[in-house]
Amino acid sequence: MLSKFRQVALIGKYQSTGARAVGASSRESLDAIAHFLMDQGCEIVIEANTAANTDLTGYTTMDVAGIGASCDLALVVGGDGTMLGIGRQLAQYKVPLIGINQGRLGFITDIRFEQYKTTLLPMLAGHYELDDRSLMHARVMRDGHCVFSALAMNDVVVNRGATSGMVELRVEVDGNFVSNQRADGLIIATPTGSTAYSMSAGGPLLHPAIPGWVMVPIAPHTLSNRPIVLSNTARIAIEIVAGRDASANFDMQSLASLMHGDRIEVTLSEHRVRFLHPKGWTYFDTLRQKMHWNEGVA
Amino acid sequence: MLSKFRQVALIGKYQSTGARAVGASSRESLDAIAHFLMDQGCEIVIEANTAANTDLTGYTTMDVAGIGASCDLALVVGGDGTMLGIGRQLAQYKVPLIGINQGRLGFITDIRFEQYKTTLLPMLAGHYELDDRSLMHARVMRDGHCVFSALAMNDVVVNRGATSGMVELRVEVDGNFVSNQRADGLIIATPTGSTAYSMSAGGPLLHPAIPGWVMVPIAPHTLSNRPIVLSNTARIAIEIVAGRDASANFDMQSLASLMHGDRIEVTLSEHRVRFLHPKGWTYFDTLRQKMHWNEGVA
Amino acid sequence: MLSKFRQVALIGKYQSTGARAVGASSRESLDAIAHFLMDQGCEIVIEANTAANTDLTGYTTMDVAGIGASCDLALVVGGDGTMLGIGRQLAQYKVPLIGINQGRLGFITDIRFEQYKTTLLPMLAGHYELDDRSLMHARVMRDGHCVFSALAMNDVVVNRGATSGMVELRVEVDGNFVSNQRADGLIIATPTGSTAYSMSAGGPLLHPAIPGWVMVPIAPHTLSNRPIVLSNTARIAIEIVAGRDASANFDMQSLASLMHGDRIEVTLSEHRVRFLHPKGWTYFDTLRQKMHWNEGVA
Amino acid sequence: MLSKFRQVALIGKYQSTGARAVGASSRESLDAIAHFLMDQGCEIVIEANTAANTDLTGYTTMDVAGIGASCDLALVVGGDGTMLGIGRQLAQYKVPLIGINQGRLGFITDIRFEQYKTTLLPMLAGHYELDDRSLMHARVMRDGHCVFSALAMNDVVVNRGATSGMVELRVEVDGNFVSNQRADGLIIATPTGSTAYSMSAGGPLLHPAIPGWVMVPIAPHTLSNRPIVLSNTARIAIEIVAGRDASANFDMQSLASLMHGDRIEVTLSEHRVRFLHPKGWTYFDTLRQKMHWNEGVA
Repeated sequence: MLSKFRQVALIGKYQSTGARAVGASSRESLDAIAHFLMDQGCEIVIEANTAANTDLTGYTTMDVAGIGASCDLALVVGGDGTMLGIGRQLAQYKVPLIGINQGRLGFITDIRFEQYKTTLLPMLAGHYELDDRSLMHARVMRDGHCVFSALAMNDVVVNRGATSGMVELRVEVDGNFVSNQRADGLIIATPTGSTAYSMSAGGPLLHPAIPGWVMVPIAPHTLSNRPIVLSNTARIAIEIVAGRDASANFDMQSLASLMHGDRIEVTLSEHRVRFLHPKGWTYFDTLRQKMHWNEGVA
Repeated sequence: MLSKFRQVALIGKYQSTGARAVGASSRESLDAIAHFLMDQGCEIVIEANTAANTDLTGYTTMDVAGIGASCDLALVVGGDGTMLGIGRQLAQYKVPLIGINQGRLGFITDIRFEQYKTTLLPMLAGHYELDDRSLMHARVMRDGHCVFSALAMNDVVVNRGATSGMVELRVEVDGNFVSNQRADGLIIATPTGSTAYSMSAGGPLLHPAIPGWVMVPIAPHTLSNRPIVLSNTARIAIEIVAGRDASANFDMQSLASLMHGDRIEVTLSEHRVRFLHPKGWTYFDTLRQKMHWNEGVA
Repeated sequence: MLSKFRQVALIGKYQSTGARAVGASSRESLDAIAHFLMDQGCEIVIEANTAANTDLTGYTTMDVAGIGASCDLALVVGGDGTMLGIGRQLAQYKVPLIGINQGRLGFITDIRFEQYKTTLLPMLAGHYELDDRSLMHARVMRDGHCVFSALAMNDVVVNRGATSGMVELRVEVDGNFVSNQRADGLIIATPTGSTAYSMSAGGPLLHPAIPGWVMVPIAPHTLSNRPIVLSNTARIAIEIVAGRDASANFDMQSLASLMHGDRIEVTLSEHRVRFLHPKGWTYFDTLRQKMHWNEGVA
Repeated sequence: MLSKFRQVALIGKYQSTGARAVGASSRESLDAIAHFLMDQGCEIVIEANTAANTDLTGYTTMDVAGIGASCDLALVVGGDGTMLGIGRQLAQYKVPLIGINQGRLGFITDIRFEQYKTTLLPMLAGHYELDDRSLMHARVMRDGHCVFSALAMNDVVVNRGATSGMVELRVEVDGNFVSNQRADGLIIATPTGSTAYSMSAGGPLLHPAIPGWVMVPIAPHTLSNRPIVLSNTARIAIEIVAGRDASANFDMQSLASLMHGDRIEVTLSEHRVRFLHPKGWTYFDTLRQKMHWNEGVA
């Protein structure tokens, strides 16, 4: 047996709606990768939705929980969004993930489909870089009860209502008052999420090794407001003080119609997600490429 | 007769709902100002809603259109929001406005209630600074028809829906393609509006003498996106290309549920609003005070 | 005769030092363009330094003042820096300029060398877009005397000394106090300069039609400091209040060792520079391309 | 004996020049504090320069090294600058510091002179909050040799020369290439320094508990450049690639005339500085007050 990973799950572009996706991983691509992996001595599992969406038959299929319980590796064929969605679900099972991208390379899905064979061979043999990412555990408290709970790999965002001028948020860290924020909203982002929405709103980049979250106000009324990097062992609480129709987002999941007094609480999840990258990969290479740092204006 | 302004309208804190306002101008304050103005030879008109909201009786009352048709001056007792709302309505009638503030001074309402007598005396006698402000005329076009039309003194804002990740907007200036913006939204602000929402989103200040608008993206996906100052004689068109539940705001008025293909068009209004300030007033004094420019951090 | 421009000057990459430049326009390129222009009926003048730097012989040569006095058009082969340097010198003579770029296209030099024939033909026949740019006239006043005077097409910059923590500057506009700025420095940029250093320091873009300058603080101590767009008919004065070894830059020209009390005064030059672009050119096309507005991160 | 700290050093506003300082701690203030401390059972040591500058006699005097070797506590009367300067010198001796401020409160010197008695009493009895701050160890390497070495509590800054358009810097982290930065300069700041120069240049705030540095470009040419938070266990190297007269600053110490190929290397110092604050102090209270977070514009 060549591969150090015995049972490997193959997962295509994730579609929460179940609808057949435009641009999703094709049956042919997945089938080719599956055969390549079998040639390396792997047993193949196809994620159930992926199999259904692509009409890929002849393989063992499992849902994500089943994959978590029995697979040694998950190989995701898709973009960063798919990878993050699956990563969040697999976090509690400690199954490592590798990402293959058929389009433009992502921050995490950094293996080109065209090169998957030469890239995967040494990785299956145990030659790879570990890239562990922390997750946020977010809860919404109303009248002392938890009315919503979610994991987030990228960010927790509290937004004003679309026709409401602003939202006012009271922020506490470990029970200490931090600030009253009147703004369009507020982002708490992980290092992974620091290259996503947080960056559009003016937040800094956080290296994945930083044990912290960045809190970024969106269009704050107070001009001296600044992004602040907080320890991820802190307990952050955001209370809705004023503003109609505030909502909260946890990665892609939304909770609308928040009420005054609702508290969004963010703590560090006990789980982590483990991505594997080709030997020699560094975070900075990806960053430089994705940020177009070699292309000046003048 | 002492005052150069014969017929003067008194307008209190504006409440579009008609409800009696918390913090609105009190009957006593308005009555005192009215008597002071009569002592200077003015005829007094009380704006009809103001009279109704404060139970102020014994004066001629008119609605804003009537005030526009017959008054020589409008004296607003309230904050910047009230002043802008009345200014927008009076623009077509060329009635100048003076603002008296009972709370924290605004960018425009720069006369303290405590000092209204000594400040107004020379102004009524003709000693004042002119401060003309341009307005935007905004229209929403759907299938070639105008479905909404409004004047804006501050800004026109196009927003993504609250649970939609972003909105994609195609911007044209005078029929020339400018850019496709994927962002939380886009602001077109007048110089007056450059100290309001536009500034929170990272826009520059525009001196009122600048014949331009500033276009400011909100949390843009493209990192090299920047605010851009455009001539106010240009015709700006913003088309909704993608994104659910986009909405548009024109100062405080909202238009929800915009559809793909809807175009928001912004041109310079033929009207202007004229504010009067005490002799010696400069825009920079107000700016310095409101922006706390004399208070460093370190 | 085909060309509407009778006498045309050819100017290569400008080297203020007189040294032979790496990457400068080659003799062959200039010679080819000259012959093409002669075929269109133009008389050719080679700028004297260009002729000397390239050993290009057999043509009438003139210095820039001579070109200004007698030529109908100046054709610059180089980048934006060369174009701006020549434009500044030709401003008083009202000679229009066209820019051809052998490397990466600039904001102003927007004709590719590879396409100069097809692009220039209609332009020489009178089909082009006008693009007039305003200039700043800057003077340094010391003890009431002007000790330095310069034109600037991009910007006037006041800097702290390299080992001085900051510079403190008092800004006045038309004699009115604006602010005391404690910062690394202060930029006053034209619309042309708004895509240069000003942009790196966080300034907005100004469309060339805007009759204004943008004043941008560099690393200001006061967090509520913001770029502000001022009318270009205003007289801006910047006085050195504190800080060792402050210096000022006017485009590329430097004046070091400014003293406390020195005043840099900026007014609108009576001259303008006229660039010609191919028919159909718009400012926004250039902007979109140079700013990489079509390349998102995610 | 009331105080848990037996031998306490008193240090006044630090003047590296030795000159008598305007605004320095007065003899009277120091004398009063000394007597108060003696009443609590402390032995008093006056820092030698402080004694010389204020003509304060009658006490044991020591230089900072002596204080480090024998004192249990250092009480600094001055601003943040003084506190940071002394903290840096005392770091290797593990002597904790308390800061008393006679003017505007600082980020670290948070005890008002007017209230020193009531505030210090419980602190001397052992009731205080610990606030440990990390330091950077910076070295300048030239041709493989270390030509300069310093500790920094705030930041390491590499600057372009005053009349040089920019500096080009090659950044590596743990030997991995990060980016080539063309900019006015580059800041590496500690959490302590994140509220100083780094913030003026657009950097985020870092909570003191974050084991990281923030790297902030100053006026970068590449618009997609962003501040990035790096682990403080990383070894950061900044190499001068291009640009005349580049210089480096380590807190207040400067090294001018850097040469191409010079490398500034930053690692975590083995030492930390320990500040003591009154019981109940939180970092966020200081931040909110210093940043004027309760004062909006509109």
